[in-house]
Amino acid sequence: MKAVVHVFLKPGVLDVQGKAVESALNGLGFSAVSNVRVGRAITLDFAGDDVPAAKAEVATMCERLLANPVIESYRVEVET
Amino acid sequence: MKAVVHVFLKPGVLDVQGKAVESALNGLGFSAVSNVRVGRAITLDFAGDDVPAAKAEVATMCERLLANPVIESYRVEVET
Repeated sequence: MKAVVHVFLKPGVLDVQGKAVESALNGLGFSAVSNVRVGRAITLDFAGDDVPAAKAEVATMCERLLANPVIESYRVEVET
Repeated sequence: MKAVVHVFLKPGVLDVQGKAVESALNGLGFSAVSNVRVGRAITLDFAGDDVPAAKAEVATMCERLLANPVIESYRVEVET
């Protein structure tokens, strides 16, 4: 199975990297862009074929290592 | 419109961050995990409602700023 994890700063947390990218894009002439946020995407292969169990285990990985649950939110997708 | 850009190192390029995460996960007891790769996910709001044009413009942003096309590949999704 393949799992994809998206980790982003929570909405209320200032995303300085996103702000920097946004002003750089505006500086390059892409003025239609706003509200840029930069996060992490983590892909991993997972042995086994129990999708709900894999999803739960990847969520545990997020809580313990992949994300900082104080300031970041995560979304897990598992595909067979 | 909302655009999501995924930027990952190309398959042949060593992903040291992914390797570090993989060995940390294995160390935490998640032994079913392999082939971890860490990339960036960038979300942005885009003015206008022409999806193909937006997709093309975001691809240009990737070439010029968001990705390093020498070692990174990117995927653009645009949703209205």
